[in-house]
Amino acid sequence: MRQFIVVGHDAPTTPDFSLDDLPGAGRLDLLARCVTSSLLLSHGIREDVRTHLVLGDAVTVTVDGGTVRRLNPDERSTAALVQNALKQREEAVGHMAVEPSPGVSLTRVGLAGTLDAVADDGAVCPLHEEGTPAAELDPPTDPVFVLSDHRNFAEGELSLLDDHADNRVTLGPERLHADQAITVAHNWLDTEGFSDYSR
Amino acid sequence: MRQFIVVGHDAPTTPDFSLDDLPGAGRLDLLARCVTSSLLLSHGIREDVRTHLVLGDAVTVTVDGGTVRRLNPDERSTAALVQNALKQREEAVGHMAVEPSPGVSLTRVGLAGTLDAVADDGAVCPLHEEGTPAAELDPPTDPVFVLSDHRNFAEGELSLLDDHADNRVTLGPERLHADQAITVAHNWLDTEGFSDYSR
Repeated sequence: MRQFIVVGHDAPTTPDFSLDDLPGAGRLDLLARCVTSSLLLSHGIREDVRTHLVLGDAVTVTVDGGTVRRLNPDERSTAALVQNALKQREEAVGHMAVEPSPGVSLTRVGLAGTLDAVADDGAVCPLHEEGTPAAELDPPTDPVFVLSDHRNFAEGELSLLDDHADNRVTLGPERLHADQAITVAHNWLDTEGFSDYSR
Repeated sequence: MRQFIVVGHDAPTTPDFSLDDLPGAGRLDLLARCVTSSLLLSHGIREDVRTHLVLGDAVTVTVDGGTVRRLNPDERSTAALVQNALKQREEAVGHMAVEPSPGVSLTRVGLAGTLDAVADDGAVCPLHEEGTPAAELDPPTDPVFVLSDHRNFAEGELSLLDDHADNRVTLGPERLHADQAITVAHNWLDTEGFSDYSR
């Protein structure tokens, strides 16, 4: 399984925002694209992927490719899934999740709790400009990639990550948007051994 | 310079569509993401990139990274730039462009005319699942990547491409959305020679 954790520093933790202005809703446009870039292929879904949006410091919305329904590629409908999940936040307590719609769950934990929850799943790999170039690494098995939104990771987040992480990975010389980085990370894993000779 | 031509088979050719339903507007959500994934970096713009959206069979909207202003990463505002361009379509005649906003131009040509216009710019590389794996090719100089939206290229388009194209390239074993393919193509070129040893 591949997992992605995206830290949305300014993201809304309540459903009181307009779908007509997603950039103004704490860059929910970017977080919505992170969901779709991680889970959707052209005419297909990556069933073996789970994506966690850490909203602010105390809510995480997880979308599971194996069970999610009605996930479309556009930002607005994906943001509506998140908004719908936030409507049930009062029913969640800590790690006890609510599942407002199939494959979409919400827990009342932040980055630390989310990292704890995936601790036994596989290698935690922050995507960071100061990491080891992907080309020099073997693609990890069952990776948990961790990304930040339009802001840099805060100091406290970096030390949390250092506690959990196996390797910081950098995907190239350009600073990408988080959703673009997810697409490149997938391709890094997808193309391992991919060539005419192996087809 | 890198260029991208994206063929939007069902895309609107008039401005009569709602920004609240971009998937219903001939998948303008996807085309908007193609513009942003080709031109935007995190906190930056790729100035040496030009992206052409072929809308239906007779209108092309081109966005130039070197001169475009007010390009934001979200789908809605990018679709609004396209909508605004379409409002001036009556003023364009064939290859004679109008420039409804800085860096956004519109011509009354389809795929054939757009391919003619870029014919001397560099290697035309359709991104296609039946191409040569990128890993086996040297990244082209001044590439013109050609992609299709959610539909496959039509027969007529494929023969047009065969007349103009140098190489069909495939980016991996998975079928990606056009905007994802653009991100991966950029990374292919960005990372040529990128490693700790070269930094």
